[in-house]
Amino acid sequence: LNSKEIKDIEAIFARLPGLGPRSARRVILHLLKKKETLMRPLSNAIKDTLDLVKNCDYCGNFDTLNPCNICSNPDRDKSVICVVENVADLWALERTGTFLGTYHVLGGLLDALDGIGPEELYINRLITRANSENVNEIILATSTTVPGQTTAHYIAECLKDSKVIVTGLAHGMPMGGELDYMDEGTIGHAIRARKSIF
Amino acid sequence: LNSKEIKDIEAIFARLPGLGPRSARRVILHLLKKKETLMRPLSNAIKDTLDLVKNCDYCGNFDTLNPCNICSNPDRDKSVICVVENVADLWALERTGTFLGTYHVLGGLLDALDGIGPEELYINRLITRANSENVNEIILATSTTVPGQTTAHYIAECLKDSKVIVTGLAHGMPMGGELDYMDEGTIGHAIRARKSIF
Repeated sequence: LNSKEIKDIEAIFARLPGLGPRSARRVILHLLKKKETLMRPLSNAIKDTLDLVKNCDYCGNFDTLNPCNICSNPDRDKSVICVVENVADLWALERTGTFLGTYHVLGGLLDALDGIGPEELYINRLITRANSENVNEIILATSTTVPGQTTAHYIAECLKDSKVIVTGLAHGMPMGGELDYMDEGTIGHAIRARKSIF
Repeated sequence: LNSKEIKDIEAIFARLPGLGPRSARRVILHLLKKKETLMRPLSNAIKDTLDLVKNCDYCGNFDTLNPCNICSNPDRDKSVICVVENVADLWALERTGTFLGTYHVLGGLLDALDGIGPEELYINRLITRANSENVNEIILATSTTVPGQTTAHYIAECLKDSKVIVTGLAHGMPMGGELDYMDEGTIGHAIRARKSIF
C-alpha cells in the first residue's frame, strides 16, 4: 500500500521501546505534518548524536566527551565508584544530585540462563580501576533482583582481597510509600533494619 | 548534566505523540546501545522520508510519488472519492482493503472555537475535483463527533447543486462490540436502523 520509505520508517519506529506498529504510524504522520519544525530537527539531532556521542572509556557513560563530563570533572570524587547496571541507572542517580563520586557501568547483569557471564560485562575493567586508581570505596548499586544481587555478590567476591571498602545502597520503605501497598520483603527488611529516631 | 546533544535529542523525542521525557530517555538509551543496527537505519530512514515523501497534489496522501500510488493507480475507481479528516484515517481505510475508489484528505475539521474555517481545509479543492472530474459519488467519512459531522454537513451543502451523489458511512454496533459496553447513542442508532436478516 504505502511506499517503501514509509514502510521502512514505520518498521524501525515500531522497534523502539514502548512503541508498536500503531504508535509508530502515529509518530510518523505527526512528523510528516511538522516536517520543518519537528522532523528536520529530529533528523539533525539523531545524526549529531550518532556522530558525536560515544561510550566513556573509563565509566561507560554516554557523552560527547571522552572521558565523559563526570570522569573529567575535577570536582568529582574519584576515590568513590558507584557501580550500576546501565547508563539509565547512572542518569537516574545523577538526577538526584546527591552523589558526587564517579560511576562504572557494567553493561548488564550476570545471568546464567541468558549465558551472560563475567566476560560479557565490564567487570574486569572495574577490578582494574579499583586496584590501580586511588579508589577507597565501591558502591554496588545494582537492582535488588536476583540477577542484580548475584552480580553484586560476584563483584564483592572479586574485591575481597583489595583494599577498597565495598558498600551497597540502603534498603527500606521508599519515600512516600504506604505500608499497605508495599511488598512483604520490603516491609520485613524495613522493620528489621529500623533506626532510632531520638 | 548531560551533553547538549543528548539534551537536544531528548527534548525532541519528548515532543512526539505518546512519548514524554521518561520514555524519550528510554528510547535514546536504546538507540545509543544499538547504534549500527537501529540508530543508523533510523537516521537514514528519517532522512529519506524527509527528502522523498510529499503530499499528493490530488488527494493529500503522503507518498514518494506525486500523484500518489492511489491516485496514479489505473485500477482505482476515480469516480468515487472518500473524504477523510487526515492521512491516518486514509491509511486506516486502506488497511481494510475494501475500498477501491480514491480519497480526499481535508487536513482537519471545521472548528469555530479553534478558528478553523473552510479556508483552512482543502474543501475548495474537493469541490473543484467533484465538479471538474468524472466523479459520481462523494463518501463523507469524517468522524461521528460534532466537528466531524459539522464538516460533513458543510461539504454536503456545498455539493447540493452538483450532480454527485453524497453518501456517509453506515452507523451501528461495531463488529465484536458488546451491548453492555456500548454508549446509548450507538445502541439507539443501531436499533432504529435495524435490518431484516431473512
